[in-house]
Amino acid sequence: MNQYSETSPREVRELIRRDVITGQTSGMCAGFAQANLVILPKEQAFDFLLFAQRNPKPCPILEVTDAGSRLLRFIAKHADIATDIPKYRVYEHGVLTGEYPNIEKFWRDDLVSFLIGCSFSFELELLKAGVPVRNIEENRNVPMYITNTPCESAGIFHGTMVVSMRPVPSRLIAKAVTATAAMPKVHGAPVHVGNPEDIGIRDINRPDFGESVTINPGEIPVFWACGVTPQVALMAAKPAFAITHAPGHMFILDLKNEELK
Amino acid sequence: MNQYSETSPREVRELIRRDVITGQTSGMCAGFAQANLVILPKEQAFDFLLFAQRNPKPCPILEVTDAGSRLLRFIAKHADIATDIPKYRVYEHGVLTGEYPNIEKFWRDDLVSFLIGCSFSFELELLKAGVPVRNIEENRNVPMYITNTPCESAGIFHGTMVVSMRPVPSRLIAKAVTATAAMPKVHGAPVHVGNPEDIGIRDINRPDFGESVTINPGEIPVFWACGVTPQVALMAAKPAFAITHAPGHMFILDLKNEELK
Repeated sequence: MNQYSETSPREVRELIRRDVITGQTSGMCAGFAQANLVILPKEQAFDFLLFAQRNPKPCPILEVTDAGSRLLRFIAKHADIATDIPKYRVYEHGVLTGEYPNIEKFWRDDLVSFLIGCSFSFELELLKAGVPVRNIEENRNVPMYITNTPCESAGIFHGTMVVSMRPVPSRLIAKAVTATAAMPKVHGAPVHVGNPEDIGIRDINRPDFGESVTINPGEIPVFWACGVTPQVALMAAKPAFAITHAPGHMFILDLKNEELK
Repeated sequence: MNQYSETSPREVRELIRRDVITGQTSGMCAGFAQANLVILPKEQAFDFLLFAQRNPKPCPILEVTDAGSRLLRFIAKHADIATDIPKYRVYEHGVLTGEYPNIEKFWRDDLVSFLIGCSFSFELELLKAGVPVRNIEENRNVPMYITNTPCESAGIFHGTMVVSMRPVPSRLIAKAVTATAAMPKVHGAPVHVGNPEDIGIRDINRPDFGESVTINPGEIPVFWACGVTPQVALMAAKPAFAITHAPGHMFILDLKNEELK
């Protein structure tokens, strides 16, 4: 049990802001949703918002800030996007130039922040529906794969879809589909069920990101669109300047997972 | 019956392009969806897309073009957004400066086109569900009202929500809600049922746009978010340059209404 599992999102964000919390956010503020972060100059923000609009399954937008505003308006109150994530990554021309506990010194009046839904939120719904979540059982990062399914491009942003995989017993596939279909703001229904090679995955035991998990006899791999997709599109586009969260170091919302339905 | 009710969208768009068709599109290409149009320079396009993202009920985006592209990619094939609408309106600094059968001479490399869902599409679903649509019965434009419900602002775009109203017998209210809730790309479920004054409507018989319709005893006014909302926000923002469709002169999609579910 995480020591901050029963702490409120606002308190945890304050501890993050004061650098009391500097590690991964998994397990904090039980029941509350967490989000991925991408920050871009307004110059590229239209293309990125359009990429998300054209690819809503891998890029479900929870909030977009006004240019230059560090404050969120919708998914969290009294939150400062430049300080309230434990670890940030700064990229220049597609190259990681550093990791930082806050990005106040990088802030500019033209920066736009995108908060993007994360599959953490639907794993709880799967458990509630009686569907096992293997990566939680095995205490691993969910396995993620780069597929050959093209995203719709938008301006400088293009790429193929990244998916996360959870093995599901045949009799529970329908439950896994319906439970997640009800949550379009956190990737929604699976994009593929079974046959990894159909979407260009050569070896299910060698994920491109995260860690592999056990697939038991009688279980079928189920694939959901993954929020790493826009991160990969961002790396490929190599904009002059971009900031993201560091993997696992997420933004914690004031909204509960079920409020993202 | 409109003489083009059984003609394909592609053929009707070609007749519009050749100025054979110059009038309103209501009743053309039966079963196919129609859309509102807003064109803005890329300079304002991010704010407008963000306004739509923050206000999805009045501004359901069906397609956004790449800057400078006259061709649509998703909702219609071989369509030219600069010629395939019967009548356009050009605005400069919020002032209507002219109506034109095409906008080829105004085209610029920085223009972005927004195609926005229209309540024409869900009226058919209401009829299928056995819910009468008074404005169709009385052959009038649907009544629309400016409410006091604020939209979420985005950059230069702000305003209150505009709603359309259809009177529904009490026993059919639930059907009207569920039939339209299934179509989030064309405004979705009603935003208000009954009590017009709750949303700032003083006189239900004096709509701000369109024409009033008969409300029979036992019928309750039902209000849906309306695609005129972004047009009103556009007028209030007074961007240096903007183009819209002329009222009733819509873009006809290759997609059927039920495909917008």
